[in-house]
Amino acid sequence: MSIFENSERTNLNEIGEFGLINHLTQSVVLTQPSSIKGIGDDAAVLDFTNKKTLISTDLLLENVHFDLRYVPLKHLGYKAIQVNLSDIYAMNGIASQVTISIGLSSKFPLEAVEEIYEGALLACQNYNVDLIGGDTSTSTQGLVISVTSIGYAETDAIAYRSSAKEGDLICVSGDLGGAYVGLQLLEREKQIYLENPNIQPDLEGKDYIIERQLKPEARKDIVELLAAMDVKPHAMIDVSDGLASEILHICKASNVGCKLYEEKIPIDPMTYETAREFGLDPTVCALSGGEDYELLFTVAQSDYDKLKNNMEISIIGHITEAAEGCTMVSKSGNVHEIKAQGWNAFS
Amino acid sequence: MSIFENSERTNLNEIGEFGLINHLTQSVVLTQPSSIKGIGDDAAVLDFTNKKTLISTDLLLENVHFDLRYVPLKHLGYKAIQVNLSDIYAMNGIASQVTISIGLSSKFPLEAVEEIYEGALLACQNYNVDLIGGDTSTSTQGLVISVTSIGYAETDAIAYRSSAKEGDLICVSGDLGGAYVGLQLLEREKQIYLENPNIQPDLEGKDYIIERQLKPEARKDIVELLAAMDVKPHAMIDVSDGLASEILHICKASNVGCKLYEEKIPIDPMTYETAREFGLDPTVCALSGGEDYELLFTVAQSDYDKLKNNMEISIIGHITEAAEGCTMVSKSGNVHEIKAQGWNAFS
Repeated sequence: MSIFENSERTNLNEIGEFGLINHLTQSVVLTQPSSIKGIGDDAAVLDFTNKKTLISTDLLLENVHFDLRYVPLKHLGYKAIQVNLSDIYAMNGIASQVTISIGLSSKFPLEAVEEIYEGALLACQNYNVDLIGGDTSTSTQGLVISVTSIGYAETDAIAYRSSAKEGDLICVSGDLGGAYVGLQLLEREKQIYLENPNIQPDLEGKDYIIERQLKPEARKDIVELLAAMDVKPHAMIDVSDGLASEILHICKASNVGCKLYEEKIPIDPMTYETAREFGLDPTVCALSGGEDYELLFTVAQSDYDKLKNNMEISIIGHITEAAEGCTMVSKSGNVHEIKAQGWNAFS
Repeated sequence: MSIFENSERTNLNEIGEFGLINHLTQSVVLTQPSSIKGIGDDAAVLDFTNKKTLISTDLLLENVHFDLRYVPLKHLGYKAIQVNLSDIYAMNGIASQVTISIGLSSKFPLEAVEEIYEGALLACQNYNVDLIGGDTSTSTQGLVISVTSIGYAETDAIAYRSSAKEGDLICVSGDLGGAYVGLQLLEREKQIYLENPNIQPDLEGKDYIIERQLKPEARKDIVELLAAMDVKPHAMIDVSDGLASEILHICKASNVGCKLYEEKIPIDPMTYETAREFGLDPTVCALSGGEDYELLFTVAQSDYDKLKNNMEISIIGHITEAAEGCTMVSKSGNVHEIKAQGWNAFS
C-alpha cells in the first residue's frame, strides 16, 4: 500500500530542481490559442483579448486534504487539477491554463512525482487546458500541492455568487453526497488494514462512490450544456463544502433567502445505501459532506422548460426574499433552517 | 525569539476557515482598473483587454525557504509577495494582482497569520498590486505559503529569456551577493543563540545585508526606468539563484555565449567585507548566492549611452556567439568557464 515500495527508484537529489522540471515538463504541449508562452521563462504569457480573465487557486496538503495511504498518486494529481478547474467552471467560464507547484520530501523517488504529474497532465488533456508553469521544491515534511487555474469568459456570461434573484429556480448538477460516503468507506478500510495488514480492502461493488472521492470530474460539460441551451445561470458556485454551505454562500452574497426540498436533492442509490450502512443520513451527507464538485446555480423561472427533462440537472428549490431565511422542507413536510456544517479546514 | 510567545492569542479553531478569510481580507481594497472582482467568489475576474497576461507562481516552505527562528512573520509575508512579483518584472511587465495561499498549523494563533498577511498587504500596497484571492488551510506540519502573481505587458515589450543577441550588453540592477551573506550572518547568530539563549544577536551595522535577505524589494523601478529611457531589454531574468545560474539560463534559451568581467560585478562594500569575515569569496557569493532579486538583462549596444551613467545599472559583460561558451574574465585576467552552482531545492 505504500508508495515507497516501488521497485524502481531514482533519487531526486541526483537530478536536482532544474533536472526535475525538465524531466517532468518535456511532454507538455501548448494547445490553447490563448497560451503564448508556457513553462520555461519567469512567467507565462497569455492572451485574453476581448475576454475577461478568471483566476483561482487551491492548496492541497498531505494529511489534511488527502491521505497517501489510500490515495494513488496519479489520482491525486488528477484530482488536484479537477478541484481547481471546478472553480473556473463555477464562474460559468472556460478553463484554459493551470500551474502546478509541488513540494515533496526528497524521500519520494522521481517515479512518485512522475505519477502525480501524469495524473495532472491527464486532467489537463481531458479538460483541454494547458499546463503553463509551476514550482517544485523539497518539503521537510508532507507533500504539498498548489494549483492555480486560469480561464476566460465573456463579460455577460460570468455567473457570480451574488446574482441570484427572488423567484429563481435552484439547480444542481449530477448527484451529491457520494464523495463523502466514499471517503467513509476508504477510512474504514484503512483502519482495518492498519489493524491487520493481511486483510485486503473490501471495496467490491463500490466503484462509483470510491471514484467520486478519488477521481472527481469538474463539470465543464454543464457549462457547455447551459450555453448550448441558451440558459444563463444567474448565480453559480461549485459544491466543494456541501450543499448547505454553498447555498448559504449564494444567499448571503445575493441578499436573498431560499427554500430547498429534501426529496428533490439528487442522491445516487449507492450513496444512499452505503450511507445507511454507516448509520449516516444520506441527506446530511449531501448537505454537509462536500467534495462533490457539482455545480449549484440559479436560473430564471422562464428557463424551467429547457431544464426540466435534463438528466444531468435537478431543480431542488427556489430563491425567496431574504426575510424568509434559508430553509429546507423535509420529506415529512417539516421546515428546517439550513445551517452550514461544511468541512472546516481548522477543526 | 519564538512567535508563540505572543501574549495575545486567538485560537484558529474558534474562528474557522471562513471566519479567518473574512477577518484577514476585510481590509483588502481593489485599486487596479484590471481587477473586476477579487476575493469572495469561486475565481477572481480580471480585464486585460489589448494586453498580454503574465502569470507566475512560487511555493515557499518552512525550513526549506525560510526559518521562523529568525524570519519575522511580517517580513515573510512581504518577501513572499516580492519574490513572486519579481518574476513579472523579469518579463518587463507590470504586476497588477496576486493571490496568496497559506497552510499553517492550528498551533499558530490568529495574530501570527495576521502578521504574515500584514506583510503581504504592505508589499501589495507598496507595489500597487491587488490581492484578489487565495486559500487558507490547516497544515499538519510546517508553514506553507504559495503565491501567484498576475501582470500584463504590451506584446512588444515582453522580454523573454530567449531574446539575447550576439553583441548585446549584459546589465544587472543594484548589487549582488548581499542576500546570501546576510543569510550567513543570520545562520551564525541562530547557532550562537541555540547554544546560549542569553546571548543577544550581534547584527550591529549589518542592516543593509540583513535587509537584503529578510526584506528584498523587487525591481519594479528598473522596469519603469527602462521604459522611461526608451530602452527595450532584449532578454531578461531575475536573479533568484545567483548570477551564474541566471546568465546560463539566458544563454541556453537564446543559444548564445557570454563574457562577464569580474571587476564589473556590483558588490556592496558591506557584502564584500562581511563575506571576507566569513572566509567567503565575494564574487562567488554574487555568482552562486541567490535571492538578490535584481534584474539581469541584455540590451543593444546602441543603448550604451543611455545606461552608462545610471547608478542603478551595471554593465557587466556582453553576449557572444554560442561557440565561445559562457565565460568570466577574473580580476587577474584569467578566463573561467561559468558554472551554475545555484541553490538546488533538492540538495
